[in-house]
Amino acid sequence: MESWTCPFPIQQYPQVLLAHGGGGKLMQQLIEQMFTKAFGPKPKEGLHDSTVLNLPSSKIAYTTDSFVVKPIFFPGGDIGKLSVFGTVNDLAMSGARPLYLSLGFILEEGLPMTILWKIVQSIKEAADSTGVQIVTGDTKVVDKGKGYVISINTSGIGVIEHPYTIAPVSVQPKDAIIINGDLGRHGISIMASREGLEFETVIESDCAALSAPVQALLKGGIEIHCLRDLTRGGLASALNEIAQAANLSMSIDESSVPVREDVASACALLGFDPLYVANEGRFVLVLPEHQAQQALEILKPFSEDFQPARIGQIQAEKKPIVVLQSCIGSSRILDMISGEQLPRIC
Amino acid sequence: MESWTCPFPIQQYPQVLLAHGGGGKLMQQLIEQMFTKAFGPKPKEGLHDSTVLNLPSSKIAYTTDSFVVKPIFFPGGDIGKLSVFGTVNDLAMSGARPLYLSLGFILEEGLPMTILWKIVQSIKEAADSTGVQIVTGDTKVVDKGKGYVISINTSGIGVIEHPYTIAPVSVQPKDAIIINGDLGRHGISIMASREGLEFETVIESDCAALSAPVQALLKGGIEIHCLRDLTRGGLASALNEIAQAANLSMSIDESSVPVREDVASACALLGFDPLYVANEGRFVLVLPEHQAQQALEILKPFSEDFQPARIGQIQAEKKPIVVLQSCIGSSRILDMISGEQLPRIC
Repeated sequence: MESWTCPFPIQQYPQVLLAHGGGGKLMQQLIEQMFTKAFGPKPKEGLHDSTVLNLPSSKIAYTTDSFVVKPIFFPGGDIGKLSVFGTVNDLAMSGARPLYLSLGFILEEGLPMTILWKIVQSIKEAADSTGVQIVTGDTKVVDKGKGYVISINTSGIGVIEHPYTIAPVSVQPKDAIIINGDLGRHGISIMASREGLEFETVIESDCAALSAPVQALLKGGIEIHCLRDLTRGGLASALNEIAQAANLSMSIDESSVPVREDVASACALLGFDPLYVANEGRFVLVLPEHQAQQALEILKPFSEDFQPARIGQIQAEKKPIVVLQSCIGSSRILDMISGEQLPRIC
Repeated sequence: MESWTCPFPIQQYPQVLLAHGGGGKLMQQLIEQMFTKAFGPKPKEGLHDSTVLNLPSSKIAYTTDSFVVKPIFFPGGDIGKLSVFGTVNDLAMSGARPLYLSLGFILEEGLPMTILWKIVQSIKEAADSTGVQIVTGDTKVVDKGKGYVISINTSGIGVIEHPYTIAPVSVQPKDAIIINGDLGRHGISIMASREGLEFETVIESDCAALSAPVQALLKGGIEIHCLRDLTRGGLASALNEIAQAANLSMSIDESSVPVREDVASACALLGFDPLYVANEGRFVLVLPEHQAQQALEILKPFSEDFQPARIGQIQAEKKPIVVLQSCIGSSRILDMISGEQLPRIC
């Protein structure tokens, strides 16, 4: 990448034009001089409508996600990093080893080319850091004022090399419930950037790839029953989805759920509950009780300033409810949000 | 599908709300009562962040495409049908048998739910007609006035069961060049709908799935050297891309290129060249000369009111140019468009 000098002539085309999505020479130039330079190597049989791949296994995980976050740059990340990690994480939630991503840009006419190049670099770095390859793509340009500046869709393919059914059907009474770190940082980071709020400390998004910790759990012999990442709707929604699909109740100990002090203060100020705030590098893991301690040990090296935590247990009761035991000993049902508690942040 | 009665309570929620993309109960209801009812069956292990699939082969084709067409309904199709066939066709251009699609919606707040339901039905019908399954999806809702009403990304996976390298590297001097039907209908149909133009006859889009004719060619023993669908940039861009990648010149006989009379008139009126207009059900096929007649016979049953045609030949000259022999005997170089000849129509 020659230390990230953009190989595309940005001075000649400082902004995205409609023609950059028009199928002609300008689109070809953008693809060849920016995208394939960044995401290459170009396949030996040339660029094509679709990419031919030889998978190491025919059992795969497949997923898609669109990203329309505003602002596109925020403390701890940007829309490019998010769109790689988001899809890598969805694959990781099946215990798959992520291999290939597709990348679909919808760009608004007039988008500064330097911004596009920054996002492309961020995508490339995120892809490299997780070992996935961008193998196919598409670019559309929409009229000025009719798009969302930049929106990105990534789909992904991962291979499944473990014997488990990682899904709510595998969840059993007495299973332990673990989360891999503190909650609420991504949502609060986006909110603060968007609204121009300043706190004493900068709250950085927790945006991170989850494939490595999940592969480490599998390699360590952890019999994973269920995984879910804690994005839109936060921990509360993920737990409710699992409880509903498994038709089992669960008990969560509120005091064991790690929330950083500055995040808790910001939530209090803004009127949000951190259990519902979106995260981009957090997951919930359901596993046999006797492996809980081992799983926490495996997850620790992937934490920086946060700690994985055991937060509760699956109950025997065949009712799809999540009960939160509060710090002062009372208990309440933790429901899904019905509407839009938070501004859309992913 | 109970004769396409919408299982979602449209009367209660006549318009898309931000909360339909918010990760809570309303999003869950939309997914479960509209999307999985239409695209099901729900996998036995429940809905998950990614879908686990067992592929019949580990050699696959993979592609992505975003669709932002305006208007979303047009003569001969709509954005739903287009987003299925577009991706199916990209897979077909590798000779792959399309199997699975992902579906990413970006919806603008306020979109009438009846419109969404129409599009969902159209997607389902198009998927069924080509034998592909929608296996994973994502929905985002953006603020009113900040989206594109509805934009759809589809990615797709197909399996490759043939022994050929269907790509420009396989193109040989003397190969025949065939197209599967008349040109220009999709682009002109969209243009006419958008601008409120009325011609004597309604020009319907050629929007169609190309997987069946390509599979028939392979089954018939046609040794396909290269395929390319004639979307953005039309025939001229596809030929130039192949000529450049193969570094071989080609000669095209203008009089053999089928363009319907009403399409030719509309192009003349609007100042467009049908060779550059986008199609959504047309491809160019490069194959050994001795199989050209057989290929035309195989393609015929897939035509309705149009005829496949042999339009030219690959030349021995190692130069990436496309030469158009005109009806009156002169010849000119058919170049790629450099900018935006046409309003964006896909």
